[in-house]
Amino acid sequence: LENSETDNFREEFLALHPYDQAQFYEKVGPDIRQIIYQYLSPKEMADIFEAIELDDDEYKGILEEMDTTYAAQMIAAMYTDDAVDVLNELDKDQITHFLKIMDKDSAQDIKELLYYAEYTAGSIMTTEYVAIPENSTVRSAMTILRNAAPDAETIYYIFVVDDTNHLTGVISLRDLIIAEEDTLIRQIMNDRVVSINVTDDQEAVAQIMKDYNFLAVPVINSKNEMLGIITVDDIIDVIDEEASDDYSKLAGVSDMVTFDKSPFAAAKKRLPWLVVLLFLGMLTANLVDLFTGTLEKVAILAAFIPLIGGTSGNSGTQALAVAVRGIATGDVEEESKMKLLLREAITGIITGVVCGAIAFGIVFFWKHMWLLGVLVGTAICCSIVVATIAGSFIPLLMHRLKIDPAVASGPFITTLNDITSILIYLGIATMFISKLM
Amino acid sequence: LENSETDNFREEFLALHPYDQAQFYEKVGPDIRQIIYQYLSPKEMADIFEAIELDDDEYKGILEEMDTTYAAQMIAAMYTDDAVDVLNELDKDQITHFLKIMDKDSAQDIKELLYYAEYTAGSIMTTEYVAIPENSTVRSAMTILRNAAPDAETIYYIFVVDDTNHLTGVISLRDLIIAEEDTLIRQIMNDRVVSINVTDDQEAVAQIMKDYNFLAVPVINSKNEMLGIITVDDIIDVIDEEASDDYSKLAGVSDMVTFDKSPFAAAKKRLPWLVVLLFLGMLTANLVDLFTGTLEKVAILAAFIPLIGGTSGNSGTQALAVAVRGIATGDVEEESKMKLLLREAITGIITGVVCGAIAFGIVFFWKHMWLLGVLVGTAICCSIVVATIAGSFIPLLMHRLKIDPAVASGPFITTLNDITSILIYLGIATMFISKLM
Repeated sequence: LENSETDNFREEFLALHPYDQAQFYEKVGPDIRQIIYQYLSPKEMADIFEAIELDDDEYKGILEEMDTTYAAQMIAAMYTDDAVDVLNELDKDQITHFLKIMDKDSAQDIKELLYYAEYTAGSIMTTEYVAIPENSTVRSAMTILRNAAPDAETIYYIFVVDDTNHLTGVISLRDLIIAEEDTLIRQIMNDRVVSINVTDDQEAVAQIMKDYNFLAVPVINSKNEMLGIITVDDIIDVIDEEASDDYSKLAGVSDMVTFDKSPFAAAKKRLPWLVVLLFLGMLTANLVDLFTGTLEKVAILAAFIPLIGGTSGNSGTQALAVAVRGIATGDVEEESKMKLLLREAITGIITGVVCGAIAFGIVFFWKHMWLLGVLVGTAICCSIVVATIAGSFIPLLMHRLKIDPAVASGPFITTLNDITSILIYLGIATMFISKLM
Repeated sequence: LENSETDNFREEFLALHPYDQAQFYEKVGPDIRQIIYQYLSPKEMADIFEAIELDDDEYKGILEEMDTTYAAQMIAAMYTDDAVDVLNELDKDQITHFLKIMDKDSAQDIKELLYYAEYTAGSIMTTEYVAIPENSTVRSAMTILRNAAPDAETIYYIFVVDDTNHLTGVISLRDLIIAEEDTLIRQIMNDRVVSINVTDDQEAVAQIMKDYNFLAVPVINSKNEMLGIITVDDIIDVIDEEASDDYSKLAGVSDMVTFDKSPFAAAKKRLPWLVVLLFLGMLTANLVDLFTGTLEKVAILAAFIPLIGGTSGNSGTQALAVAVRGIATGDVEEESKMKLLLREAITGIITGVVCGAIAFGIVFFWKHMWLLGVLVGTAICCSIVVATIAGSFIPLLMHRLKIDPAVASGPFITTLNDITSILIYLGIATMFISKLM
């Protein structure tokens, strides 16, 4: 009876796609998960674990509820890149322990990948690829492929290497199945193979795979020795993460990859930025405070402070976002920094003059005070120009200094823009105070 | 001599990857492009055109510089989804003209796809897929595959259909090449095939392909008849575009897909948002204007206007960004809207109380005015709560009303937050004016 229950569960459950299995697994409680561990082999559990989407800090708890040997066997059965992702969430001691009790080959593969820095090609590559010698025939290549198929992460690109494991070419399975069986691989392979260095940034890898529409790309070291491959599914995750990362930072949220189910987790992600900006905002308040003499005399000046600060902040954010995205996609690399800054300066002047003129118009028709209109218009124009230049110069500088432009630029630019716009506005107002009264 | 020059160029150029060919093609001027058209066949030019990345409005000019018959043959030779993308940039007359002079089969395929609305699965699918009957053997399936390989967009997933073209299963080339030659496809195919309806939104398609790590997914109509496939390379573009789209809107730039080389183009993308916010900012100015009496008496109140408006704007943007991203990724669909709003309200209260307390502390120690501290702290706390709730409620409402939450929410929320924060701040200040003086 017990056995037939297991069989029924296994039959139903294993017919599902691993993603659906993972969805089920994530939803059930620890009791049912224990039953799943009993019913499924470590290898079957590995397929689920590859499709799972947990928060980084949840992996530890899940692995601790498994039998240690079972967990080690499961990690060993995963694709090396996924296994490394899981292990990276654990303490050093736990990693060592798991590596010790799993089979030696898997442990060796995993150890090699653990060594690569986060966000590099090495950290997202897998070692389960198919390589064939240059002088194989199509027939022998197909035999190698059939044997490798159950374990390889992809068999749709086959990489060609020489006797010393140097990458010399690539051939797609598409080309292989339409070729004559006796042809030598060397004759039909593509020898202009695009490869990635193991230390390259993962964003650069994503860009190449996107541009060339590759399903997989080979990873080599500086000696052109083949080390692994990166597959398109991992790249989709990278593209998604990087875009979401830049977006989070623009919005001032520390991380948006996971959608929070608890208000405390959400508050924890939002507070750091709010508090930093609160302190920086006090600088602005301090500055306005210096002009209370002017404001007491012409209180209407205060009415335009939010408008001028807001407009300057908006144009700064625009320039910042364009620069950050341009740096992320590599578009910025294509031209000189000076040319880019010059272009932003001209953009700032165009937008500044247009907005300044509109502001003058509105204030003039509303308050019938032409001097106040000129003042507000001039302040808006100047602060847009400054904000636009700062919004592109600061991220470029950060990039040069190897600081992530997205995270470091926001607070600087917001505060700088607030301060300059208020200085310009209240400064000019103070100069012409006698005419405004 | 002329001939050997052509041969040399063709040999060198065609050895390049289509992406590199496209890069070269994009960089040269119209004279060299004319030579390229002479040297390459429409089919070879089609490969380049599929890899090209032009601005939407540039396609027209490029097609006009080609001989019309050559252009029509080139479009006919492209994968149908790419051909439709190109044609969609042209006028109706031009489309009709091109369709008339190309071969009937291609014209028919293209016409069917032109019919589907933008951003639906139908608009990004291609009809060049491989389908085999259920009762084929593995051997006959391989023969069909070999014949289809040169034209199909992917041969790595083979879709299985019954006599009336209903989708009944899928089998990967990986499974096919390790199967026995006499096995029936029906026996080894996966009959739990995940498919997309032709009217589904492209974002939903992207989510499914990302979750399941598919390389291609079949598109069906409501009768389960197979119409086409969507491949992973198109989905990468969708993911990239959608993320970049939300990011552009958060930054207040009308579109960031192409990196502008001209300051006029950049200014054109940034001005609409700046001008809209300028007009809305005048509402805020009008509101502050009502409180000039209070500000004349206690001018230091003006010092905190930028701080309070800024903090409220920041927390509103955070809530907005999380909601917009949650809607885009589908995370929001999983739970009730009421629960989400309640969670945001609690998040707002937590962040509001923390920031309010910090603001009170700073003002108290800086100015030694406890009442001013309480006033600023209370205003910050209240306006963060309001801004957080508005920042999540408005995009959810937009989503319900089928308006893109990313585009419509920004100006509303910024203005609403400015107005409420100033009303709260100067309202309370006016109430306690006698104690502040």
